[in-house]
Amino acid sequence: MAHPLQALRDAMAEYHIDAYLIPTADFHGSEYVGAHFACREYVSGFTGSAGTLLVFANWAGLWTDGRYFLQAEEELKGSEIRLMKQGQPGVPTIDAFLRASLQPGQTLGFDGRCVDARAGRRYHRLTRQLGAKLNHQVDLVGEIWAQRPPLSAQPAWLLEETYAGVSRREKLEQIRSALVAEGQDVLLLTTLEDIAWLLNLRGGDLPNTPVVLANLVLTREGCTLFANPAVFPGQVIDALEADGVVLRPYDGFYGHVGRLTPDQHVQLDTRRVSTSLLTAIPSEVPVTDRPNPTESRKAVKNPREIENTRQAHLADGIALTRFLYWLKTQAPHQAVTELSAAAKLEDLRREHPLYLQPSFDPILAAGDHSAIVHYSPTPASDRPIGTEGFLLADTGGHYYTGTTDCTRTYALGPLTQEQKTHYTAVLRGNLALSQVTFPAGCPGSSLDLAARQPLWELGLDFNHGTGHGVGHLLSVHEGPQRIHWQPTGPQTPLAPGMITSDEPGLYFDGAYGIRLENLLLCVEKASTPFGRFLGFETLTLTPFDLDAVCPEQLSCQERTWLNDYHARVYQAIAPHLPSQEAAWLQTATRPL
Amino acid sequence: MAHPLQALRDAMAEYHIDAYLIPTADFHGSEYVGAHFACREYVSGFTGSAGTLLVFANWAGLWTDGRYFLQAEEELKGSEIRLMKQGQPGVPTIDAFLRASLQPGQTLGFDGRCVDARAGRRYHRLTRQLGAKLNHQVDLVGEIWAQRPPLSAQPAWLLEETYAGVSRREKLEQIRSALVAEGQDVLLLTTLEDIAWLLNLRGGDLPNTPVVLANLVLTREGCTLFANPAVFPGQVIDALEADGVVLRPYDGFYGHVGRLTPDQHVQLDTRRVSTSLLTAIPSEVPVTDRPNPTESRKAVKNPREIENTRQAHLADGIALTRFLYWLKTQAPHQAVTELSAAAKLEDLRREHPLYLQPSFDPILAAGDHSAIVHYSPTPASDRPIGTEGFLLADTGGHYYTGTTDCTRTYALGPLTQEQKTHYTAVLRGNLALSQVTFPAGCPGSSLDLAARQPLWELGLDFNHGTGHGVGHLLSVHEGPQRIHWQPTGPQTPLAPGMITSDEPGLYFDGAYGIRLENLLLCVEKASTPFGRFLGFETLTLTPFDLDAVCPEQLSCQERTWLNDYHARVYQAIAPHLPSQEAAWLQTATRPL
Repeated sequence: MAHPLQALRDAMAEYHIDAYLIPTADFHGSEYVGAHFACREYVSGFTGSAGTLLVFANWAGLWTDGRYFLQAEEELKGSEIRLMKQGQPGVPTIDAFLRASLQPGQTLGFDGRCVDARAGRRYHRLTRQLGAKLNHQVDLVGEIWAQRPPLSAQPAWLLEETYAGVSRREKLEQIRSALVAEGQDVLLLTTLEDIAWLLNLRGGDLPNTPVVLANLVLTREGCTLFANPAVFPGQVIDALEADGVVLRPYDGFYGHVGRLTPDQHVQLDTRRVSTSLLTAIPSEVPVTDRPNPTESRKAVKNPREIENTRQAHLADGIALTRFLYWLKTQAPHQAVTELSAAAKLEDLRREHPLYLQPSFDPILAAGDHSAIVHYSPTPASDRPIGTEGFLLADTGGHYYTGTTDCTRTYALGPLTQEQKTHYTAVLRGNLALSQVTFPAGCPGSSLDLAARQPLWELGLDFNHGTGHGVGHLLSVHEGPQRIHWQPTGPQTPLAPGMITSDEPGLYFDGAYGIRLENLLLCVEKASTPFGRFLGFETLTLTPFDLDAVCPEQLSCQERTWLNDYHARVYQAIAPHLPSQEAAWLQTATRPL
Repeated sequence: MAHPLQALRDAMAEYHIDAYLIPTADFHGSEYVGAHFACREYVSGFTGSAGTLLVFANWAGLWTDGRYFLQAEEELKGSEIRLMKQGQPGVPTIDAFLRASLQPGQTLGFDGRCVDARAGRRYHRLTRQLGAKLNHQVDLVGEIWAQRPPLSAQPAWLLEETYAGVSRREKLEQIRSALVAEGQDVLLLTTLEDIAWLLNLRGGDLPNTPVVLANLVLTREGCTLFANPAVFPGQVIDALEADGVVLRPYDGFYGHVGRLTPDQHVQLDTRRVSTSLLTAIPSEVPVTDRPNPTESRKAVKNPREIENTRQAHLADGIALTRFLYWLKTQAPHQAVTELSAAAKLEDLRREHPLYLQPSFDPILAAGDHSAIVHYSPTPASDRPIGTEGFLLADTGGHYYTGTTDCTRTYALGPLTQEQKTHYTAVLRGNLALSQVTFPAGCPGSSLDLAARQPLWELGLDFNHGTGHGVGHLLSVHEGPQRIHWQPTGPQTPLAPGMITSDEPGLYFDGAYGIRLENLLLCVEKASTPFGRFLGFETLTLTPFDLDAVCPEQLSCQERTWLNDYHARVYQAIAPHLPSQEAAWLQTATRPL
């Protein structure tokens, strides 16, 4: 069998494609893609969760972001694929690279089902300007991938209203009203998290994201769900039908869209739907491009979701705290490996009856692995955690009550003064962001300074966002809000009910990495003659490792923040621990 | 004589204009407009430096920003003109208001020479969408204003290279190279500050801004300056001609532009040039819209300008410190008024041989006047400063060496605890912003949190930007950089050599206002493996009033910042004071 890259080039030649683009994407713009969609990984060997491969006959490059520079370098070793470090000085964007490399008359190809419509339009314009051609109807990896796994077909299930907080019927009415208010007739929804949220429906078709592969068409009168009927138990179908949702086969969607008529005003979000979908709509049909009305509503958690989420974080905090106890007092460090530590933590989470599954692949990174922002241990990379330096643990769980995501960095033995200074700076940033007060309307880009200033003033920084939105038993990375000092494009203001991570970090290639992450719930803080002011409630409840803190580098205020947080953690978690562990926790959360 | 508003409406009827728009603008988009251009003030009576009047036959409204809400309310009293508070909840923008009010078939009119081309295009689109008409060639205020002052005609003068730092010839070469590099043939420059900067030319045609009314056409070979030849002394003309700059009459500009030919690629900035200019260019001429290449170069001060600016701030600091001494120890508060205090400060500045003129109308505001953000005392509003509450002094000067802008708020007598808390919060914000470290590429919007957090955490805020760019013996408000947490549009990163104000404030209508402003020079701070880090050098050198500070509300770090700043002020200023004043300054800058 030819190497996949060679096989791809053979197929490119056959289809007269000069440059072939393979994003990391499924038909729904999902962050984590199922095995069927692991095309970029299949061809390149790079296993990270984000990246785009561009292949020419005599050149191939992989673009990925700062989280994956080290991992990609490692995994691309020995291949001819060049690592293109996104956002680094002098590294062209894919568009700029294509603009410089694609010759007039040549053809750029990709599978339009896996490229969002906005990007598709950009490539269309780019090729036209270059006098080149575009073919967005070629799934070349599908042609060459003999053992390609089939589409996932995991059972669909209903999220009871006691967990969802708002009924399917009420949500459908809300979104339909929004559609009518905008003067639209049809909403085309292909984002899996939005469909799952709208229908109080969950499944298992994406890694770490309990959603169902589906597309949805909402009209003023009806709602059609295009999905694999085989995965829907009878009572799920009944429940959907009772609320007017009709189930149709997954592959009927494009045909349905092709039969839309010019009297129907169609709304969709070109950042979310695929190029293929947009081009499947008859050209006479009026299409309005705007954010899905589900997006902002899903981001703002309802009161039940908020109360449940607090419970999920309590459960998660117990597991994380017991893990820390085990690590600090019980674990034979020479025998424990990254993978076995991950298994231990997973076991502790599993003890809770409402625990469902990890919300992302656990990152347990010892030694210099911790400098790889999104390192996940594999049997090949696994190593004993040892008795020196840091163990970085970035893990999270889906509970029926909500989704967690927490990073702690633990001292595995005595640390150097410099390591402590670095840990303390990251901690100061984490605490400062969690304490900010800001006026309603303020986007995350205006708040990131709080998290970064303790690092920046030491000439340090980290190459990833400080905060991502978090879904509710959906995707652990779910916008539209984010926290990053670089304002790119329109900024979504933070709003009460939104959950966002707070995760400053610091990474030294080949040495160690530190990241400290809590989830923050945006809450009302005050309403004064100067306006409405918002702030954060810290949801995550588990200690920071005081063995890594330099108390004298904390200001009085920072010390108070830390002590108050630890008092809250102790009060919440201790009652749920065996007495020996509770006693240990008292020390672990002692005031500084 | 009819009231101007009635006269305007009569003229509107005559010209078949249903809605007439009067911005605060001259033909050059200047911030402060000369007497000839005070059309909005003539019709509305509102004297603030910013605002737009919109007049219908049976409705008139004035839009202005938060700085002027109180003043506009006062000045519009008794008129039928409605105050439209920009940015307040529920207040429509002018565009939204027009969209709702202008009827199909009606005509919107304005003087296109006073509306920038980008806004002009927006109004064009808006009227077309409404089925309305646009007439941008009517200067109706010119029709009705019998005693309209003529265009200013103050003498032009040369800024010697010892002050400008870079020769006219070198600047012309730089900008010409930029033009050629962009593939352009002609640059149309109408922004007075950019012309003055490029030609090392100054004048007196705008209030507080020493520039010459002029337009400039730069080509690959030549440079033509369209200005009133009568204001140019012979040696200025000679100096310009020696560097290839030809002088032509001011009113020849539009004719010249009308003769551009299709083989000439023209570059201009539609945010800067007027609607009339853009429409004067023959439609076959290719026009590229981008920021003027002078803009960013003017914003980054050259080494000579920087060194000179430090000298200007030393001179200004001496005057401001002597003013404070006088105010605190000498001034008979019952007799001193806002205007006489302003005159005293102006006298102190005038003692410096390189002092030229105020850089804006001095704001000296006692009692509740200080709550009016941009209050300037007039004979009608003038009052004794008294012995209670605050005196807010926001003043600045143009020196041959540079431009200053400083706000101090002084305690005129004992303050309440609340007043001190408010003062201290503003001070904490001012100090915190001056101390931030940030990576190269960071825009001001990502830094504002530092200045606002001490206020936000108390449920307080202020309704203006925290920082504006400052010109060098040009406009005291001069972008493109700014510091404001609301990222509107593309953000300009702060760069070493830029000067920006740092002026948090706090205002209580009818009670008092506080604002503390220093100018900050952006400087290199460190270059580390994590990137280039920038920070600020505080240029302004005059004490904060310790009588208004609550020491116990300062963190240790904030106390150190304040004490270090005051030590710097003492060291710089004391040697230039009479011994009695120097002794007083030692106390005024004592460490807390």
